[in-house]
Amino acid sequence: MDLALVRPDIISLAAGFTDNPTLPVEEARTLFRDLLEDRVSAEAALQYGNTPGLRELCQRSAARLERLDQPSPGPARVYSPDSFIITHGSQQLLYMVTEVLCDPGDVVLLEDPTYFVYLGIAQSHGLECRGIPLEPDGLDLGALERALNRLKREGRLHRVKLLYLVSYHQNPTGTTTSWEKKARALDLLRSYERSAGHPIYVLEDAAYRELRFAGADVPSALATPMSEARVIYTSTYSKPFATGVRVGFARLPEAIRVPVSRVKGNHDFGTSSLLQHLLSRALASGRYESHLEQLRLRYAEKAGWMLDALGSRFPAEAAWRRPAGGMYVWVRLPRHRSTGLRSELFQRALAHDVLYVPGRLCYATDPTRRAPDHELRLSFGSASREAIDQGIARLADALIGAPAARPAPRPRRPRRTANRRA
Amino acid sequence: MDLALVRPDIISLAAGFTDNPTLPVEEARTLFRDLLEDRVSAEAALQYGNTPGLRELCQRSAARLERLDQPSPGPARVYSPDSFIITHGSQQLLYMVTEVLCDPGDVVLLEDPTYFVYLGIAQSHGLECRGIPLEPDGLDLGALERALNRLKREGRLHRVKLLYLVSYHQNPTGTTTSWEKKARALDLLRSYERSAGHPIYVLEDAAYRELRFAGADVPSALATPMSEARVIYTSTYSKPFATGVRVGFARLPEAIRVPVSRVKGNHDFGTSSLLQHLLSRALASGRYESHLEQLRLRYAEKAGWMLDALGSRFPAEAAWRRPAGGMYVWVRLPRHRSTGLRSELFQRALAHDVLYVPGRLCYATDPTRRAPDHELRLSFGSASREAIDQGIARLADALIGAPAARPAPRPRRPRRTANRRA
Repeated sequence: MDLALVRPDIISLAAGFTDNPTLPVEEARTLFRDLLEDRVSAEAALQYGNTPGLRELCQRSAARLERLDQPSPGPARVYSPDSFIITHGSQQLLYMVTEVLCDPGDVVLLEDPTYFVYLGIAQSHGLECRGIPLEPDGLDLGALERALNRLKREGRLHRVKLLYLVSYHQNPTGTTTSWEKKARALDLLRSYERSAGHPIYVLEDAAYRELRFAGADVPSALATPMSEARVIYTSTYSKPFATGVRVGFARLPEAIRVPVSRVKGNHDFGTSSLLQHLLSRALASGRYESHLEQLRLRYAEKAGWMLDALGSRFPAEAAWRRPAGGMYVWVRLPRHRSTGLRSELFQRALAHDVLYVPGRLCYATDPTRRAPDHELRLSFGSASREAIDQGIARLADALIGAPAARPAPRPRRPRRTANRRA
Repeated sequence: MDLALVRPDIISLAAGFTDNPTLPVEEARTLFRDLLEDRVSAEAALQYGNTPGLRELCQRSAARLERLDQPSPGPARVYSPDSFIITHGSQQLLYMVTEVLCDPGDVVLLEDPTYFVYLGIAQSHGLECRGIPLEPDGLDLGALERALNRLKREGRLHRVKLLYLVSYHQNPTGTTTSWEKKARALDLLRSYERSAGHPIYVLEDAAYRELRFAGADVPSALATPMSEARVIYTSTYSKPFATGVRVGFARLPEAIRVPVSRVKGNHDFGTSSLLQHLLSRALASGRYESHLEQLRLRYAEKAGWMLDALGSRFPAEAAWRRPAGGMYVWVRLPRHRSTGLRSELFQRALAHDVLYVPGRLCYATDPTRRAPDHELRLSFGSASREAIDQGIARLADALIGAPAARPAPRPRRPRRTANRRA
């Protein structure tokens, strides 16, 4: 990512930044003016809050989630505001839950491929990952069962603490997990709990749920039977509103509420009151919803531009699916074409002044399978129409081996950084 | 703390909240208006930033710290903006540095007593604490040396990774560590590094440095010889500006910059851009400084109210020192008078509708000494003049055993929560 600073001509289709022109500048200005005009609300916003988060924001988040899960939500108590916590972005929740549930040497089940920053969290906690392949409607449940059986045979089922699912417009593949698959995955996990000797949680990361621009929404895992004690649901207001405002939220099963709140107390004893009050007002005033509508149209448009460019520029050997939300297109090349940081393709792309995320980075280090190396994640989040067109054209040139204006740099050992939203 | 919600008549001299009437409402309104009026600055503030933090805020923090350390700062390179990181409050930095430097079973040296939330961080990382008694000008260096020798004899010197110092207007005692003591402590630690087999860092927590209202400032540990590779300095803009705005910063030795940045990437990949831009503008515009001047006058006044009330109300057996900054007065009773959560005094104080922080909570669990139990921390941060007067009068009644309007509740096992800024 540092390259983008040094080489201003480079087009990054790699970073997970969001669209600049639709950032809610007017909305934020009005919301802050109103919030700070009244001495009472201003003082509340500028003073410390409590650790779990602003009560009214928990209430609004809970009510909103219950509405999203219509027409078949879970039992009302699943959406109790008491079970909610507000975090400094949903990323913080992923970290805290992992810290609470897992010990070094534990096993986490996750999608193959998955959100690559979560792999950094897993690694930093000394966890072993097992990747479960994805089908078009989510997890391959047969593979999930085989993974659980294998862990059982290995005598390691007692180390399995959670299944991490990016269930809406997944980063990186765009896959949305069906409600049926969530329900069946929960059932399956439950059936292994006796052997495991403890609960196995589902950590549902719905960060991209709001960024749907086609198709219908899917109820969350909270809307499945028996979700109450097993489903951790987290999402964020950053992406759908403004990524400079880091506010995420989560719904927690009762057993882990106090431990997660304690970890939050140690991390930062509470998310900035000012940001929480801002979001709470954005939700209450309807500005959040109206901005979101606009954002969805924008991402639909941008996805269309990228798909058009891919269709007209990319060679026939490349394949992708049309995303229904989120900010990414996941492109598959033939198996023999490496896309990794040290691959010829990546170096050629650099020479053509364009960046992508090598698919390999989204696969866990899983001793039970070899990670694919022939995919790439392209983001249409922050790039302009021109940058999307140009970027895809340059990548296509790199793919077909067209000569670049500057020579491909000598491959060198890459530093893997976590410097930008992935 | 939950009690304050249930019993609205209760006066809390316990919580570390800050003064409401001086919160910078006008300043924040103007700063946000200006920031969001211009599309370019607005987009930067509403978009993701990078993980280590906004460059201009790092620069301003570095330059400001160098100015504070005048007339005898450390070498210029110590204040390089490249060595700075911005965090979601300085608390987050304490957590991250501890995560980076320490493994379970390691030993952390700290003041006796110390900031009690840090004890929670140490506990959550499975660390053993060794408390070093305080003299009026900071650490008892003889005791520090004895602790190091004892650890050496025990064969545990290789587990010592850092000395944690709250060096300005310490929470809870108000002690400020002299420059000489910082320099000598660093020297002493350095002399044990060969036996330890690794660097021993000083983590200087300057959270209350800006809240000085009497006496002269003291240069930081960065202004001591050999500080460059060993001193981690952290402070916050939350307390001096607005506690609802969670922005801290730190200066890191080179060896731990990448690891800390990586942990930050896992926690939240960067502090809210919006908050960082707000603070950067507050600093650049001079509004931060002018607000701080006002705040210092206010805390001087509030400290005076509390000291007057203590002087006129408290029995002669109680002793305290006049704080020169911060928000706390540390009161000592005779050794036999327990102040703990289960003590008669605490229960009587509850019956009199007043809360304090029992001193015992500020002492680590240190196997080498018995923790004192006869002290109390009183905060004048958020209480009004009337609440200070009334609160101290009630506490004095509790101390001398005057009858309360309601009976003292039956002592019950307290839950130790980390729900509020301590």
